[in-house]
Amino acid sequence: MSHTDSQTVVVTGDRTTGPLHLGHFAGSLQTRLNLQQNHNPFILLADTQALADHQGDYCKVRQAVIDVALDYLAVGIDPKKSTILIQSMVPELAELSFYMMNLVSVARLERNPTVKSELRAKGQERDVAAGFLTYPVSQAADITALRGTLIPVGEDQLPMIEQTNEIVRRFNRMVGENILNECEALLSNTTRLPGIDGKGKMSRSAGNHIALSASSDDITAAVNKMYTDANHLTIGSPGQVEGNVVFSFLDAFDPDSAKIAELKAQYQHGGLADSVIKARLNEVLQALIGPIRERRAEFAKDPDAVLSMLLCGSAKARQTAVLTLHKVKTAMGMYYF
Amino acid sequence: MSHTDSQTVVVTGDRTTGPLHLGHFAGSLQTRLNLQQNHNPFILLADTQALADHQGDYCKVRQAVIDVALDYLAVGIDPKKSTILIQSMVPELAELSFYMMNLVSVARLERNPTVKSELRAKGQERDVAAGFLTYPVSQAADITALRGTLIPVGEDQLPMIEQTNEIVRRFNRMVGENILNECEALLSNTTRLPGIDGKGKMSRSAGNHIALSASSDDITAAVNKMYTDANHLTIGSPGQVEGNVVFSFLDAFDPDSAKIAELKAQYQHGGLADSVIKARLNEVLQALIGPIRERRAEFAKDPDAVLSMLLCGSAKARQTAVLTLHKVKTAMGMYYF
Repeated sequence: MSHTDSQTVVVTGDRTTGPLHLGHFAGSLQTRLNLQQNHNPFILLADTQALADHQGDYCKVRQAVIDVALDYLAVGIDPKKSTILIQSMVPELAELSFYMMNLVSVARLERNPTVKSELRAKGQERDVAAGFLTYPVSQAADITALRGTLIPVGEDQLPMIEQTNEIVRRFNRMVGENILNECEALLSNTTRLPGIDGKGKMSRSAGNHIALSASSDDITAAVNKMYTDANHLTIGSPGQVEGNVVFSFLDAFDPDSAKIAELKAQYQHGGLADSVIKARLNEVLQALIGPIRERRAEFAKDPDAVLSMLLCGSAKARQTAVLTLHKVKTAMGMYYF
Repeated sequence: MSHTDSQTVVVTGDRTTGPLHLGHFAGSLQTRLNLQQNHNPFILLADTQALADHQGDYCKVRQAVIDVALDYLAVGIDPKKSTILIQSMVPELAELSFYMMNLVSVARLERNPTVKSELRAKGQERDVAAGFLTYPVSQAADITALRGTLIPVGEDQLPMIEQTNEIVRRFNRMVGENILNECEALLSNTTRLPGIDGKGKMSRSAGNHIALSASSDDITAAVNKMYTDANHLTIGSPGQVEGNVVFSFLDAFDPDSAKIAELKAQYQHGGLADSVIKARLNEVLQALIGPIRERRAEFAKDPDAVLSMLLCGSAKARQTAVLTLHKVKTAMGMYYF
């Protein structure tokens, strides 16, 4: 494995399918806030990839680009430290992806476990858009064009990193030179945040989420709806902590872990009402989301400044992508002049 | 169907997999020579597509770009009338293709009869590169980016036109506006030139071709090897004209069709030696290819001029492609500024 330089380059991002929620905060945003202290991560707003996901619902995608950018700024992603870019504003990503399409077989894409499980979830095994089946190629192009070396991912995204490195190795072998660099996964150590209904992970499409822009009332309503332990019928009876959504949330967001351990013991023993743990969680979430919502509203007052930040970020990222594509095309002899 | 203007725009081209041969001359180059009198065709050197075909044999592709350009000039394609462009030099084609990938399903691509038969011929049904399965999308992007309305094709390429128009309709429906225009096929009325061995069509991969740059000796050798009628054992015995490669070539290239009809009658009746019809064909082909070879050698003396012509053609085509992509991205709301 050969890096062209010894510097760590973090590349991460989101498909822009809608505003972000607490699941994103627990799963990736907190990691990014840590990473931006010592690295200058590229954070990619994957609008083109979102189109594949949404079968061309481009109005939704466009709005989501703005929404996700506002969410980033609201949680503390700092454009001075992180480079936020819009995928479609760096056309070299599409161009590199186009070349990489020759370096991976259809059969290999169909075997990609991440793609397979996403297709199963969508019930689209047969009628999948070509752009969806090939999105691992697009992702490989995004990562390598920006010369990413460290990619924060959840466990379910590991096959994407593997596929990226396969493409990189195949390209380098083809041109007989290490033009592109392989990358490593940075596995997030958080467990996935469940939805408020306790059915699988939190996701907007399942409607079991709490948005980062949720109002105070939204938060209270969501906490009240939360699944605890269906067998915890009286306050006095012992309750289950495992699979109890309220405790999962407290584990993820309550800074006082000693207090949580104490509450869990009490709940398991019996004598602790659901209303008590829900009240605590409501307090924790209000304290977490309140300032995010306020900062978000502040940033939303000046959409031009947000767009300008995205323009700068995209232009900055483009410099790197142009250079990579130049190396790729030179190695392939595709400059004729 | 809505054209943005009433002008006919011809788009055609070749995958740059190697120098052209007589099969190309009979099948497409003659049509282009006619078309360039009244239209200004775009002729695309599909180098990126050739990479998919050649599984990344980029050295071959690069050389073929120059070879095919020389062949064009040698047969009389005039850069003042025809715009010759290199696919990879108009990155907007890759970008548009990337967006179009969301408008066609994998199942639909797998059903494309042209792709299916090409895959069968390559014996690659299972291990096809993603870039090959999706090449109809790339072709649709090429045609529509250049605003092609009339596409000269052989019968076997009709499914590509159909697929292009499907993508166009789907895009226009999606954005609720006729941004892209549909195209029509201009079916070539020539029958496919057989290979000199009479086994299927002429193709370089089958080794049964006569290159447009063939030397005088090459031509004579190829004509001598040509398949006539295996049952025409003596001069006096009646010979078959159907499936007789020499007569197929005479039909395609001998300007004196009355004389050919006479020779055919005589051959069928008996009394005409293979050597006589071969001598005539040799003469016809020497007269056809001789000047092409000479002009080719002339142009090859100044490769910089050829490259400069390709640079200008690509830049000119790029103006159109940039404009189309601008309309596409605007319609999709993908300009954020």
